[in-house]
Amino acid sequence: MDQSEIKNLLEQVRDGHLTIDQGLEKLKHLPYEDLGFVKIDHHRQLRRGFAEVVYCAGKTVEQVQKIMEALAKTEKNILGTRATPEMYEAVQDVVPDAEYHQLARLITVQRGEQKQVGNILVACAGTSDLPVAEEAAITAEIMGAKVDRLYDAGVAGIHRLLMNRGKLDAAKVVVVVAGMEGALASVVGGLVDKPVIAVPTSVGYGASFNGLAALLAMLNSCSAGVTVVNIDNGFGAGYAAAMINRMGE
Amino acid sequence: MDQSEIKNLLEQVRDGHLTIDQGLEKLKHLPYEDLGFVKIDHHRQLRRGFAEVVYCAGKTVEQVQKIMEALAKTEKNILGTRATPEMYEAVQDVVPDAEYHQLARLITVQRGEQKQVGNILVACAGTSDLPVAEEAAITAEIMGAKVDRLYDAGVAGIHRLLMNRGKLDAAKVVVVVAGMEGALASVVGGLVDKPVIAVPTSVGYGASFNGLAALLAMLNSCSAGVTVVNIDNGFGAGYAAAMINRMGE
Amino acid sequence: MDQSEIKNLLEQVRDGHLTIDQGLEKLKHLPYEDLGFVKIDHHRQLRRGFAEVVYCAGKTVEQVQKIMEALAKTEKNILGTRATPEMYEAVQDVVPDAEYHQLARLITVQRGEQKQVGNILVACAGTSDLPVAEEAAITAEIMGAKVDRLYDAGVAGIHRLLMNRGKLDAAKVVVVVAGMEGALASVVGGLVDKPVIAVPTSVGYGASFNGLAALLAMLNSCSAGVTVVNIDNGFGAGYAAAMINRMGE
Amino acid sequence: MDQSEIKNLLEQVRDGHLTIDQGLEKLKHLPYEDLGFVKIDHHRQLRRGFAEVVYCAGKTVEQVQKIMEALAKTEKNILGTRATPEMYEAVQDVVPDAEYHQLARLITVQRGEQKQVGNILVACAGTSDLPVAEEAAITAEIMGAKVDRLYDAGVAGIHRLLMNRGKLDAAKVVVVVAGMEGALASVVGGLVDKPVIAVPTSVGYGASFNGLAALLAMLNSCSAGVTVVNIDNGFGAGYAAAMINRMGE
Amino acid sequence: MDQSEIKNLLEQVRDGHLTIDQGLEKLKHLPYEDLGFVKIDHHRQLRRGFAEVVYCAGKTVEQVQKIMEALAKTEKNILGTRATPEMYEAVQDVVPDAEYHQLARLITVQRGEQKQVGNILVACAGTSDLPVAEEAAITAEIMGAKVDRLYDAGVAGIHRLLMNRGKLDAAKVVVVVAGMEGALASVVGGLVDKPVIAVPTSVGYGASFNGLAALLAMLNSCSAGVTVVNIDNGFGAGYAAAMINRMGE
Amino acid sequence: MDQSEIKNLLEQVRDGHLTIDQGLEKLKHLPYEDLGFVKIDHHRQLRRGFAEVVYCAGKTVEQVQKIMEALAKTEKNILGTRATPEMYEAVQDVVPDAEYHQLARLITVQRGEQKQVGNILVACAGTSDLPVAEEAAITAEIMGAKVDRLYDAGVAGIHRLLMNRGKLDAAKVVVVVAGMEGALASVVGGLVDKPVIAVPTSVGYGASFNGLAALLAMLNSCSAGVTVVNIDNGFGAGYAAAMINRMGE
Amino acid sequence: MDQSEIKNLLEQVRDGHLTIDQGLEKLKHLPYEDLGFVKIDHHRQLRRGFAEVVYCAGKTVEQVQKIMEALAKTEKNILGTRATPEMYEAVQDVVPDAEYHQLARLITVQRGEQKQVGNILVACAGTSDLPVAEEAAITAEIMGAKVDRLYDAGVAGIHRLLMNRGKLDAAKVVVVVAGMEGALASVVGGLVDKPVIAVPTSVGYGASFNGLAALLAMLNSCSAGVTVVNIDNGFGAGYAAAMINRMGE
Amino acid sequence: MDQSEIKNLLEQVRDGHLTIDQGLEKLKHLPYEDLGFVKIDHHRQLRRGFAEVVYCAGKTVEQVQKIMEALAKTEKNILGTRATPEMYEAVQDVVPDAEYHQLARLITVQRGEQKQVGNILVACAGTSDLPVAEEAAITAEIMGAKVDRLYDAGVAGIHRLLMNRGKLDAAKVVVVVAGMEGALASVVGGLVDKPVIAVPTSVGYGASFNGLAALLAMLNSCSAGVTVVNIDNGFGAGYAAAMINRMGE
Repeated sequence: MDQSEIKNLLEQVRDGHLTIDQGLEKLKHLPYEDLGFVKIDHHRQLRRGFAEVVYCAGKTVEQVQKIMEALAKTEKNILGTRATPEMYEAVQDVVPDAEYHQLARLITVQRGEQKQVGNILVACAGTSDLPVAEEAAITAEIMGAKVDRLYDAGVAGIHRLLMNRGKLDAAKVVVVVAGMEGALASVVGGLVDKPVIAVPTSVGYGASFNGLAALLAMLNSCSAGVTVVNIDNGFGAGYAAAMINRMGE
Repeated sequence: MDQSEIKNLLEQVRDGHLTIDQGLEKLKHLPYEDLGFVKIDHHRQLRRGFAEVVYCAGKTVEQVQKIMEALAKTEKNILGTRATPEMYEAVQDVVPDAEYHQLARLITVQRGEQKQVGNILVACAGTSDLPVAEEAAITAEIMGAKVDRLYDAGVAGIHRLLMNRGKLDAAKVVVVVAGMEGALASVVGGLVDKPVIAVPTSVGYGASFNGLAALLAMLNSCSAGVTVVNIDNGFGAGYAAAMINRMGE
Repeated sequence: MDQSEIKNLLEQVRDGHLTIDQGLEKLKHLPYEDLGFVKIDHHRQLRRGFAEVVYCAGKTVEQVQKIMEALAKTEKNILGTRATPEMYEAVQDVVPDAEYHQLARLITVQRGEQKQVGNILVACAGTSDLPVAEEAAITAEIMGAKVDRLYDAGVAGIHRLLMNRGKLDAAKVVVVVAGMEGALASVVGGLVDKPVIAVPTSVGYGASFNGLAALLAMLNSCSAGVTVVNIDNGFGAGYAAAMINRMGE
Repeated sequence: MDQSEIKNLLEQVRDGHLTIDQGLEKLKHLPYEDLGFVKIDHHRQLRRGFAEVVYCAGKTVEQVQKIMEALAKTEKNILGTRATPEMYEAVQDVVPDAEYHQLARLITVQRGEQKQVGNILVACAGTSDLPVAEEAAITAEIMGAKVDRLYDAGVAGIHRLLMNRGKLDAAKVVVVVAGMEGALASVVGGLVDKPVIAVPTSVGYGASFNGLAALLAMLNSCSAGVTVVNIDNGFGAGYAAAMINRMGE
Repeated sequence: MDQSEIKNLLEQVRDGHLTIDQGLEKLKHLPYEDLGFVKIDHHRQLRRGFAEVVYCAGKTVEQVQKIMEALAKTEKNILGTRATPEMYEAVQDVVPDAEYHQLARLITVQRGEQKQVGNILVACAGTSDLPVAEEAAITAEIMGAKVDRLYDAGVAGIHRLLMNRGKLDAAKVVVVVAGMEGALASVVGGLVDKPVIAVPTSVGYGASFNGLAALLAMLNSCSAGVTVVNIDNGFGAGYAAAMINRMGE
Repeated sequence: MDQSEIKNLLEQVRDGHLTIDQGLEKLKHLPYEDLGFVKIDHHRQLRRGFAEVVYCAGKTVEQVQKIMEALAKTEKNILGTRATPEMYEAVQDVVPDAEYHQLARLITVQRGEQKQVGNILVACAGTSDLPVAEEAAITAEIMGAKVDRLYDAGVAGIHRLLMNRGKLDAAKVVVVVAGMEGALASVVGGLVDKPVIAVPTSVGYGASFNGLAALLAMLNSCSAGVTVVNIDNGFGAGYAAAMINRMGE
Repeated sequence: MDQSEIKNLLEQVRDGHLTIDQGLEKLKHLPYEDLGFVKIDHHRQLRRGFAEVVYCAGKTVEQVQKIMEALAKTEKNILGTRATPEMYEAVQDVVPDAEYHQLARLITVQRGEQKQVGNILVACAGTSDLPVAEEAAITAEIMGAKVDRLYDAGVAGIHRLLMNRGKLDAAKVVVVVAGMEGALASVVGGLVDKPVIAVPTSVGYGASFNGLAALLAMLNSCSAGVTVVNIDNGFGAGYAAAMINRMGE
Repeated sequence: MDQSEIKNLLEQVRDGHLTIDQGLEKLKHLPYEDLGFVKIDHHRQLRRGFAEVVYCAGKTVEQVQKIMEALAKTEKNILGTRATPEMYEAVQDVVPDAEYHQLARLITVQRGEQKQVGNILVACAGTSDLPVAEEAAITAEIMGAKVDRLYDAGVAGIHRLLMNRGKLDAAKVVVVVAGMEGALASVVGGLVDKPVIAVPTSVGYGASFNGLAALLAMLNSCSAGVTVVNIDNGFGAGYAAAMINRMGE
């Protein structure tokens, strides 16, 4: 959808040929900017409630740079996941207000004051799970959620979890991040009456099979209400949690 | 926790030795009824927001009968999943107001008028997915959700989905049930700005590997905000959707 | 080793050509009775501390009958695992004091008073795990262990476990039986300072993959000191627990 | 088949001892050039319609160089797949008109004017799928197909696909390249009445299992008419599409 | 799309408000008949070139009957796959001209004279592969293809294949059906210059893993131009072959 | 190859236009009898050293009957594997000298006196492995091998094996049949200086994954000289052993 | 639990408001030190019988350093597993008495004289298994066990094992470490009447699938009494063995 | 077994206390040299027919050096597999007559004239399979076999194989090395009446899963008489082939 198309559409609205709702609907589904190797979905904010997120893995540094540059022209908040420091440096050249979160491998741009609502608890089982937990937490924050953290609360010392029931009780949604046997998701799920989003991590070795063990465990959780995202997909969990979290706010 | 313990606890509340909140807290975590082969968790309603759900598979008809009988004495709503007709007959003998949903393999007991709030859309890809879709829908209904259905809307004829955008737009949460390649979850996820819970089904053959193909597809969805439950786990999806659905009501 | 060989060996001991220890050593390793389709290892009691156990699956009813009959002539205690009721009936014809444990699918023969020492706790997560849990418990009992049971104590209602810490504390060894996500093993492992033997069960569906999920979870337990046996291998867990349990008695 | 054999064969044709067809048949199936470590199949062009393609992975730089050199003596068009820049440099020394396509990792030699017929559409889901998509597109082009490209049209923003229905309608064959959940193949398959060749890519992480998720999804496509090639096998898809594309031209 | 909508659409075409092409386009994408549990896609013939195919597995006999009845009212040719004899009997009651192909488990309805064009060769490796081969052959025939068969031509006796080169040469497309190690696809692929569609079957045992061995083998075929469908998916192969076969006719 | 072709060929040999060797060569590769659903390879005896073996699984009773009948007209020895009793009954009607080996599920026809040479030892780990072991043993016998048996010699009581070293020493080839962990193959392989063919069986449960555990173990044997066949493939092991066994006789 | 809480608890004990046992119980389950990214479980020694073990993989050098430093303030013995030399160097700066075991990748701190009781035999199959075997042995030693070693005793030369029966007989517990087919566990298990803990290693290639073959083999051991830990988990085996070994001492 | 033991044994033979056969028997099973981290099995030549082979992967350079040095003192022929150039350099320092075969990654020591008997054909499908094929060929040669090679004869151009039937006919045993779909093993197996040992290689990508595809294909070969070794296990195939090859010489 080039400039003239948008202009034409707006004129139709102004002149009463399209109602406001019709105009919104058209804007929601049609337009994208075509860079050849990528179609940038500028209106995803309207349709999905958040701007397009850039999955940086498998892209060249130059591609990431160009996509972020294009998004930066129209979007308020931008998120790039699985970004390397090299990618960040290239992005910073063209989007000076971009920030990098090394542990979480995220590039973020956040403009204006973001109101943070609700309460998401991100809990993780061990220190080695932190990169994924932080990816979830920062994703949720940039989407406008208030986030609390409860780290290193694995079931090998369950009192570390039980002593923090207050955090569980205060949350609207809980994200549980765990590798190895992933048991934390089931234990948390059994303690709360709110949605639990489980993120298996690839932390472990041998028969962990890069996170398969935790993934299967979480999918088979005996606690109802637990849903699961891909291995190491902190972003997906943070995104889903933020969507749930804003309900009723 | 036997009768005397509960009595004692209540006396403490009455006499001001425990506040109401302290009393509630104690009741939340302690008691269960021990039948030897099963510990019935009568207070799960308090702790989790819904009474204990009975997973009937792998239990004898007699065990299911006894557990349902025990629950029926104290609970308002009861749910038994993966129940055979034989189990239902045995339960009906001792819990006359139990109902059976053959397609969904559910035994339900629902007492009093249940107010149905919010709006969950249960969508499925094909007719063969109906048993799982119905398990999700009925589970959500017994937990107090208003449920809409959109069946046989698989991506092989995507206009069947696109023509029902109104149903997608009206929902607070969407449950997507699909077997084979499970693509419906990603397509729906890309169209809405609300939580999508994906249920892979074992519908398919060969390299479907009993639902593995759909499960992996859903876990790898390119649409953010999609979370996943176990293969054929309509109950789990319905339960999670109902928890999310009641937020903000 | 036929009769004459044993006679000759004993004569050598009597006449001082072999010491008692040398005689014992020879008897330990050599003899078995050859029925053609099976070699019955009558002296396993000496070598392993318990008579040969008959794995009945995959054998014909007639084969099981003949093996049990042969063992019954010389052994005090006999154990047949994964036995069908038909097998039991055939065995009973020739070994009248054989007993059948339907849930655990065990045929046992127990002669004389068995002293029961130590204390093994067999815990299971759900009612559907009972067949495997009972296989473990009865196996340990016939091997001379005192066995306590804690059933239906899964992590979805962790207070059911925490309220039974006394049972955990009293045990010398704990056998944990669980299907689905198998989280109970890690939680128990984190609470005790004694060996935990985890038995994954095939209870579950979909991504449980017939017990694979629980197996992987238990192998990846974050609680040190947990060792694992094959899926549904209650016998193996009971056997190992009994060997550990008798240490120090 | 050395020179004298070919000479002899041609003499037989000249003298009428073999018909033209018999001569062609013999030439089709017999000859290859033996370099010891490789047998170069110079007449594959006759038999298969395209010269032997060199799979460079797992070969040494020197082997690739020698094979390409030998092919370059007799073939019009040559294709080397999965070639590294080092391999290309070595080839260029002996085949100066060789070209390198970095993204697609292809070495090509194209001599004379190649007429490009038909119309193959290569569509891909995301920017990270480009290397595989380009491998397919260039392979088809060197085999004489006209190729159109539709990149970054994944189902998370399905309007990007629907707005390009013209490209779908104009194609004779569609190659769909997608990683993660690979849903694009089913959606495209449901929209067109022409052959769709699906290429799963290893783009993704965690439960993508290096492309397994997309592979299984595509094999289980609910849209009839979709066939599948190996993960990341852009070459195979381009080759098959080119064979179909030239039918009826 | 109810009657009035279609009527309205046609009036628009008649009155020149829509061109013929616009009218066709609209009809292509919109309508379906909604039976509640199924949405019947009557216009798939326009969009995909063949009427909706009914996948009968996982549906009740009654559902299959109703769907076939609805399709029979408007379609010329109908295909039901993976149908049991019971399903056929129920269908026959309401669609008397339906036929049943027992080996291939297909229900077909074929009205009027079907012209059979082109030439598809369906080859299979062993007699045990016949059900899948016949599913492919009959599917292609009902879609208007001329089909030749070459059965029991596995590579253990490769002369059986080589002696039938005439059949390979005469075909426009080849469907290769094979279980066990699935080598036939690669051998055929290396002999011809036309598209080869490979169908792995679940024939075999042990490490065949229900067709996984043949599937992986075919996906890894060293012969370019081979594409693959799901295990035992004779229908899919026949459908794709028929689409290719009609090109250029 | 019809009668006239064979006649013509023989005339050419008689008249000296073909040498004996050329005639044999031609006969080796060409002929088969085409029953439509099967191509019977009557000359496999010449080419492979043993007549075509009929894999009965997946064939109808009638197909098996017809194939055996056709083979019985020209072959001396016939073997049908994985045959049911029903198949045998049908075969017996048309081939009265056919025999059935129930445990091994084999149909055999053996005509004239078979000289049995060499010495193959078939060893198995447990009684449950007998069906596969007998399939191997009888296959080897019908191919002319002398076969010795050593059953129930698993490593849980390794003296049963060590006491039978004489049998190991006397054999030219050893076939080792074992399920569960399949350790017997490695132990035997370490004791002998002759080829060991290992057959994993599906005996076991849980993480045996229907023989996968034994298969992987045998493929990874630390004893050099062990080769492996498919799970439960007693026939294949017996066949390969017989081919090796006749070397040097 | 901060200082004041502990002080308060101790005062209660001193004043008789809590018995010694009650005080011990409270201390067992409550306290941990919170460093933000990690919760250090100082009282695990009381609860589990050994101080918290640090799993170093996936942690930053700085995190490992801080955790070890914190533990070093209160613990007598410390163990860090899967530590790199870089981690050790950083730890040594702050915990000068830390030692590094390069082969086993362990950091240990051992203060005061450690009495070594019982007798654990660590046996391994090949030299390549040494890193895992040493991890097991040193873990057991730091937990107070006397450890004997029997290395390179794989079943390919079973006399190496049989000649060391004295070591097997002298042990209270046996740890068996083996890669490839892992047969050593079953052979040892069949020879002894004591607990055997099997550790599969990732030694091998191809169908070893990084230790899966050995893992499955050990889980399916035909010798009763064998329990299994994760692939390459020498630490877990040593820990469990040490817990069993101290029984009865 | 130290010197004195051997001396004593020989004296017993000399003096007639042991027969020659008894002496040989004792020497066969007893001795090894213990270097601590390895037990060198000097008499394997007697027991297995070839000296101990050193699997170098997973060993340190120093360990390999010491083992080779020890073997070099007593053995005539030595073989080290999967050796790096670094290992070879270290070995050469202490065993100057050691040779290195770079492609095959083998270290060999061969002393005296080795008579080469029989005839093993090593065939491979593609140039990328050469390292494994050479490992097989050189292993067989050092064990005294005459070896012929047929390389790059994959089924994509089957005439390359068929034109070399002379090589197949001349061999006593055939080793077939192939990656990707591994079809060559079945095709060769169907053409010959001699043992075929199949070696799957990890050549390929995507759904080759590092050689799994070829492995499964070979295990499911429809050609009887094919046995299989581990992925990339050229050594194992060469060893087994050499054992078979010397039969009857």
